[in-house]
Amino acid sequence: MSQTDMTIFEKLESEVRSYVRSFPTVFTKAKGYKMWDQKGTEYLDFFSGAGALNYGHNDPMMKAKLVDYILSDGITHSLDMATAPKAEFLTKFNEVILKPRNLEYKVMFPGPTGTNTVESALKLARKVTGRTDIISFTNGFHGMTIGALSVTGNAFKRKGAGIPLQNVVTMPYDSFVNDNLDTLEYLERFLEDGGSGVDIPAAMILETVQGEGGINAASFEWLQRVEQICKRWGILLIVDDVQAGVGRTGTFFSFEKAGIKPDIVCMSKSIGGYGLPLAITLIRLDLDIWEPGEHNGTFRGNNHAFVTAAAALSYWEDPKFEKSIEEKSEKIFNFLEGIVAKYPELQGEARGRGFMVGISTEIEGLAASIAEEAFQRGLIMETSGPKDEVFKLFPPLVIDNEGLEQGFKIIEDSVKAVLGAKELVIS
Amino acid sequence: MSQTDMTIFEKLESEVRSYVRSFPTVFTKAKGYKMWDQKGTEYLDFFSGAGALNYGHNDPMMKAKLVDYILSDGITHSLDMATAPKAEFLTKFNEVILKPRNLEYKVMFPGPTGTNTVESALKLARKVTGRTDIISFTNGFHGMTIGALSVTGNAFKRKGAGIPLQNVVTMPYDSFVNDNLDTLEYLERFLEDGGSGVDIPAAMILETVQGEGGINAASFEWLQRVEQICKRWGILLIVDDVQAGVGRTGTFFSFEKAGIKPDIVCMSKSIGGYGLPLAITLIRLDLDIWEPGEHNGTFRGNNHAFVTAAAALSYWEDPKFEKSIEEKSEKIFNFLEGIVAKYPELQGEARGRGFMVGISTEIEGLAASIAEEAFQRGLIMETSGPKDEVFKLFPPLVIDNEGLEQGFKIIEDSVKAVLGAKELVIS
Amino acid sequence: MSQTDMTIFEKLESEVRSYVRSFPTVFTKAKGYKMWDQKGTEYLDFFSGAGALNYGHNDPMMKAKLVDYILSDGITHSLDMATAPKAEFLTKFNEVILKPRNLEYKVMFPGPTGTNTVESALKLARKVTGRTDIISFTNGFHGMTIGALSVTGNAFKRKGAGIPLQNVVTMPYDSFVNDNLDTLEYLERFLEDGGSGVDIPAAMILETVQGEGGINAASFEWLQRVEQICKRWGILLIVDDVQAGVGRTGTFFSFEKAGIKPDIVCMSKSIGGYGLPLAITLIRLDLDIWEPGEHNGTFRGNNHAFVTAAAALSYWEDPKFEKSIEEKSEKIFNFLEGIVAKYPELQGEARGRGFMVGISTEIEGLAASIAEEAFQRGLIMETSGPKDEVFKLFPPLVIDNEGLEQGFKIIEDSVKAVLGAKELVIS
Amino acid sequence: MSQTDMTIFEKLESEVRSYVRSFPTVFTKAKGYKMWDQKGTEYLDFFSGAGALNYGHNDPMMKAKLVDYILSDGITHSLDMATAPKAEFLTKFNEVILKPRNLEYKVMFPGPTGTNTVESALKLARKVTGRTDIISFTNGFHGMTIGALSVTGNAFKRKGAGIPLQNVVTMPYDSFVNDNLDTLEYLERFLEDGGSGVDIPAAMILETVQGEGGINAASFEWLQRVEQICKRWGILLIVDDVQAGVGRTGTFFSFEKAGIKPDIVCMSKSIGGYGLPLAITLIRLDLDIWEPGEHNGTFRGNNHAFVTAAAALSYWEDPKFEKSIEEKSEKIFNFLEGIVAKYPELQGEARGRGFMVGISTEIEGLAASIAEEAFQRGLIMETSGPKDEVFKLFPPLVIDNEGLEQGFKIIEDSVKAVLGAKELVIS
Repeated sequence: MSQTDMTIFEKLESEVRSYVRSFPTVFTKAKGYKMWDQKGTEYLDFFSGAGALNYGHNDPMMKAKLVDYILSDGITHSLDMATAPKAEFLTKFNEVILKPRNLEYKVMFPGPTGTNTVESALKLARKVTGRTDIISFTNGFHGMTIGALSVTGNAFKRKGAGIPLQNVVTMPYDSFVNDNLDTLEYLERFLEDGGSGVDIPAAMILETVQGEGGINAASFEWLQRVEQICKRWGILLIVDDVQAGVGRTGTFFSFEKAGIKPDIVCMSKSIGGYGLPLAITLIRLDLDIWEPGEHNGTFRGNNHAFVTAAAALSYWEDPKFEKSIEEKSEKIFNFLEGIVAKYPELQGEARGRGFMVGISTEIEGLAASIAEEAFQRGLIMETSGPKDEVFKLFPPLVIDNEGLEQGFKIIEDSVKAVLGAKELVIS
Repeated sequence: MSQTDMTIFEKLESEVRSYVRSFPTVFTKAKGYKMWDQKGTEYLDFFSGAGALNYGHNDPMMKAKLVDYILSDGITHSLDMATAPKAEFLTKFNEVILKPRNLEYKVMFPGPTGTNTVESALKLARKVTGRTDIISFTNGFHGMTIGALSVTGNAFKRKGAGIPLQNVVTMPYDSFVNDNLDTLEYLERFLEDGGSGVDIPAAMILETVQGEGGINAASFEWLQRVEQICKRWGILLIVDDVQAGVGRTGTFFSFEKAGIKPDIVCMSKSIGGYGLPLAITLIRLDLDIWEPGEHNGTFRGNNHAFVTAAAALSYWEDPKFEKSIEEKSEKIFNFLEGIVAKYPELQGEARGRGFMVGISTEIEGLAASIAEEAFQRGLIMETSGPKDEVFKLFPPLVIDNEGLEQGFKIIEDSVKAVLGAKELVIS
Repeated sequence: MSQTDMTIFEKLESEVRSYVRSFPTVFTKAKGYKMWDQKGTEYLDFFSGAGALNYGHNDPMMKAKLVDYILSDGITHSLDMATAPKAEFLTKFNEVILKPRNLEYKVMFPGPTGTNTVESALKLARKVTGRTDIISFTNGFHGMTIGALSVTGNAFKRKGAGIPLQNVVTMPYDSFVNDNLDTLEYLERFLEDGGSGVDIPAAMILETVQGEGGINAASFEWLQRVEQICKRWGILLIVDDVQAGVGRTGTFFSFEKAGIKPDIVCMSKSIGGYGLPLAITLIRLDLDIWEPGEHNGTFRGNNHAFVTAAAALSYWEDPKFEKSIEEKSEKIFNFLEGIVAKYPELQGEARGRGFMVGISTEIEGLAASIAEEAFQRGLIMETSGPKDEVFKLFPPLVIDNEGLEQGFKIIEDSVKAVLGAKELVIS
Repeated sequence: MSQTDMTIFEKLESEVRSYVRSFPTVFTKAKGYKMWDQKGTEYLDFFSGAGALNYGHNDPMMKAKLVDYILSDGITHSLDMATAPKAEFLTKFNEVILKPRNLEYKVMFPGPTGTNTVESALKLARKVTGRTDIISFTNGFHGMTIGALSVTGNAFKRKGAGIPLQNVVTMPYDSFVNDNLDTLEYLERFLEDGGSGVDIPAAMILETVQGEGGINAASFEWLQRVEQICKRWGILLIVDDVQAGVGRTGTFFSFEKAGIKPDIVCMSKSIGGYGLPLAITLIRLDLDIWEPGEHNGTFRGNNHAFVTAAAALSYWEDPKFEKSIEEKSEKIFNFLEGIVAKYPELQGEARGRGFMVGISTEIEGLAASIAEEAFQRGLIMETSGPKDEVFKLFPPLVIDNEGLEQGFKIIEDSVKAVLGAKELVIS
């Protein structure tokens, strides 16, 4: 294949493109935790498609099933008609994921993106309760369509709406103000005081670990209290597990260890397994009061994704998988804490849970410089947070020790290089 | 493979599912204009995934390219990083589609569904103009997320929002009131009168043929006048070509024959060629003022779809393709007019343009009965319009004469059967 | 009293002041249809406080009652406690106004301004129906607070809100587009088509003659059809009689001759009789489902206004009053038609009903010049319409023939002078 | 005069009436701090028209000027034309109030009610800043029209809107959560964090003492910090002094002792002096960017109120007036603290500042019972707070010692009686 000219994107693609600016090369091939560009340069992927590639790139087992399916002329696009791969996914999801966790949900297939599942969840919560407001949390990120954007905190993204965003009240996430302020005491005062200006909402929506908002992990106790408050006031609890779900924080659902049972769960990204577009909305049985077709979408029957999604669930049949995530998570967090301790100039703080972690630093621009340096050295990772103050480690869950060690080395080298260069400038 | 139990969907899938209720069988295989269920029953597809399968199911040429790509571990999921298949799609879209039509647009990749491209278009129009309102048209359908739903006419879908839908003014589509009322004279009065309560909007959004709204085709003159009005008042014109585009009305873009040049074009459904999720937003060069990342989405880099989308464009390299659509369109419309003439009890009217046509009948429930009968006889088609008053012929563009004739026969037989049964009831 | 320096207002009052710019003198005294400034210059009042002084200035009978009341230390401010003057007003309003017209309404006292009664009406309509939208009409004017402003057409006033105005759909008033377009056929299409994007609203709100919007008088037939449409679809009909009520169009309520019975009526301006702040909302008996205090306001118990309002109702006990309005109305309209005929350069059109009339002219700035010239010659009148294209005759209903004749002369002289000066400029 | 039948109100007035239910008698006469009903029963007024009668009823000096003005046929209703009484009010307000306090404001006359001045302030703040959001505070009360209601906390009142209230964010007032939580640290975190979901607002609006919200007095330090935060972030500070202004808290403006200078001040209620409808909006000189007529209202030129408002300002020419308020305030607060100490069963807390005070008690229904008992014993006072948990002492500022002592006695007797009866029930 001839080489692709990078200027094609400048000439033909909208200015809205963004990651191509941070990682300016033409990617062609990928496998597991590795990516290659057209020049053959190899990159370690510590980004995982922002959480869409928890099983790594082009998993061989899923690949085989997908190719078989395509070769057999299996139906590709089916809207919400019944198909064999859909039935298989539904059955396996119920058997492998829901039942063992003692969960009962109906599965809805909205359009195959994270923002679509969030929109479906908000609609349903309003329909069920007859209320209009939603409580969201500071630095929450839920998507870019108007409904989902309304519950998203980021000012830059919000401004993009071009209209005032409505029907939402933002409450402080765990530790938002400082570590001493009990944000839930605050929240509940608003609910209990009839003069607070905050009406009882249809739902609260939250991520248990905020991916885009700066790798903020809510404590399990905080999550439990949110659930209690929701129950006390008849508010539905929506967990947006689009990024934190599918093992990213260590368990299939990010809320398992907190012991809570959300009323609605939003999933996308890695649910498809292979990086193919898919989204599902899990609905508590008695809340499934949708009329047929009340929320729909053309690509809600993406059978290629059903095939790989069903295949991916096999990983969860063996308890070793979850255990291996836990072990590697510990290793990663130790590495991060080591970096923070070893490089005090970084003024860093290790954050997050499981494979959803990073280091925040208050030094302006530092996190971005480190990520840039890492890319030069062959590792892809991104920054996060309202001021891009966190560099974010998001390797695939299936990464092996060798990959981790390689990545750690590049990251530490990058930290050193950037801090060194900084010192040179200062001194 | 063992047989799939249909009750799985009732047990595990949300009540929101809808087409599975009209076409209650488990589909497994598809090719061109044919589909098969698990029992081996063959169906003619006169529905085409609501316009997502204009090239038919599992086109062999696209299939080959897709399988090759997968087998070579081509990168699957890339967000908006640069990849070879994306570059190829961009280049080919520019060469094969835009240049020959004397059009210049930047291509934006929003999340891969129709509603996402519409949301991106509305945001951009508001950003460019600094205004908040959008003019939409009666019986327009643009999607299910809150922004897109705001410009959608259907009351049932709108109610699903659970909140008042804002920042939109609905104006009458061509021939909405009756054939004599000039709906644009009306619209322009609202714009020119400073006391009309209608502010100059950021944009107007419309479909040139309304697919969900009842197969209403705007005249070319009406479209030209809309364009003039937009220019006169500095309003952006957004054409939603999600359903009517990619040849469905006879030309690649549905607005070509009207000779207009929209400021923004929304595409999805068949743009991916193979039924894989993809959406693009075409933006007039000088309007592309997005900040990097101002609107994004996890699955905007669906490389499988880039591969098939680029392959699909080959169809348009040969002018015979467009010509063949035209010839078959004529045949289809003649068939519809014949039915209307031959069965006056139908009180029918043939509607639409190209491969986006149907027969409307004011007799309540009749269109649905005919579609149901057709399914019994092995043909899949759906109904459309605010009262489901239209049965809609949407075969793939690549259907051959044999397929058309078979389909026509089933449809006519279904009309006869339903009218006959009706007569029995009446007499 | 020493002379007042006009610069006081420039120095101390906000730039928002407006009429003082058109009529730049310091008024001190007023009686009937006459006003005097501090220099003793006499003016004929053909403006009547924009309809708040239908009984003229400082009516002697009301004045006597008011002074008596004050001198006796009658309670002035009573919120919504029971007082003797309030009881008297309620009783007399029922006896003199409602009963003879075969109307039954509960009376609500919102804050004492037009915009407050409109806000109360909209709230109640939404509460009763559980719906959110209101249909208003082009060039309607209903007030300046956000709820009332939402249903007001004027773009300049709307822009002042600083936020998008919501929950309203503007429909074309009688003859808005042209004399041939049946605006109600149009409106009803929107209601009956489930895909129109217009939901069934809580209410329609309209003025039978639009005062601020350009002296547009709806035909009685149009009003009757609006009432029928409202009944057919279960929509409440709110007539805003703030400006057109209390005899301004010839009868006490402006809608009497149309034979319709609105569900809610908004009144203010002349209802207090003496120019004192008062507003009432009339509510069909079965719609009065307010909770106590659900809508309130500090000055809803303005007893001075109750005293004069009750006194003013005496005018309506004698049928001669209504008759005299009719006779004078005819004289006024004849005068206007005479002017239009006699001065074709004016390109004028006589408009309106009763004492709510004017001449519109498409010549830019002409109406304002004539009003300005009239002020120089000792007559006060204002302009109206989205482009100030109408000069508006609004004398008090109690004006005598001598006053009318004087006014006519000044107006004709002003027309002549302005047209003459214009001609000079042109030639 | 014949006796008024109380059933008139039930028959003819809307169910929305409320105070008449708490004080069910027909009032006829009032003077200073006393009111009489038609039976001649005398009542002490510890309510003062919810703050509209700070100078008591029917002040003789104002009354004389008002009657003189009326008898001389002084112009009553003048919209915003120049009149002598308006000039006098403007001049005197500037000389007696603004200059000595080193304040410079332009005066705007909106419609003559509190909600109208608030609406004008919000509009102007949005116009000046180009932003849409307003920060309001828990238990704030600002009026009943949609704009003002949006920034009002009370759930019952908000629900009355019938539509979602938008473009507002409610922040915790001083001591809202508990005495330890620093509500401003909390608020500022939201402003400084770009991911907080709270955009920089156009303005903050607050009462320095919340009248309807439960007699919550913000500390001066809190107010100063609010002002600093507003300055830091370029947010306009609006003080709603409708109820707390005109001496109610001890100084003319309620914010004087805090040493802050709001950008916009809303006044109504007692600004008219005599209980006549009037409202003003004070605007920092450089913010007065209104277009002429951009916000208007029929009764913004209520000359009777200008006459009494100007007369009322004379009180403030003598420093003894302010001093006397202070002395009496102390007496009142001592009385309240005495009650709280003496009757621990009350579980009371004395609250407020100046003549804007009360006792809150968590015992459900107790405050209302005490107010009811007081009415039986000839004293009028109301309750306040989201659960009506406060009984509120609001005597006129001009009350003498005798009046205070009488009032205290009735209140203490009422407390005793209610507590006694309660005990009987319990034991």
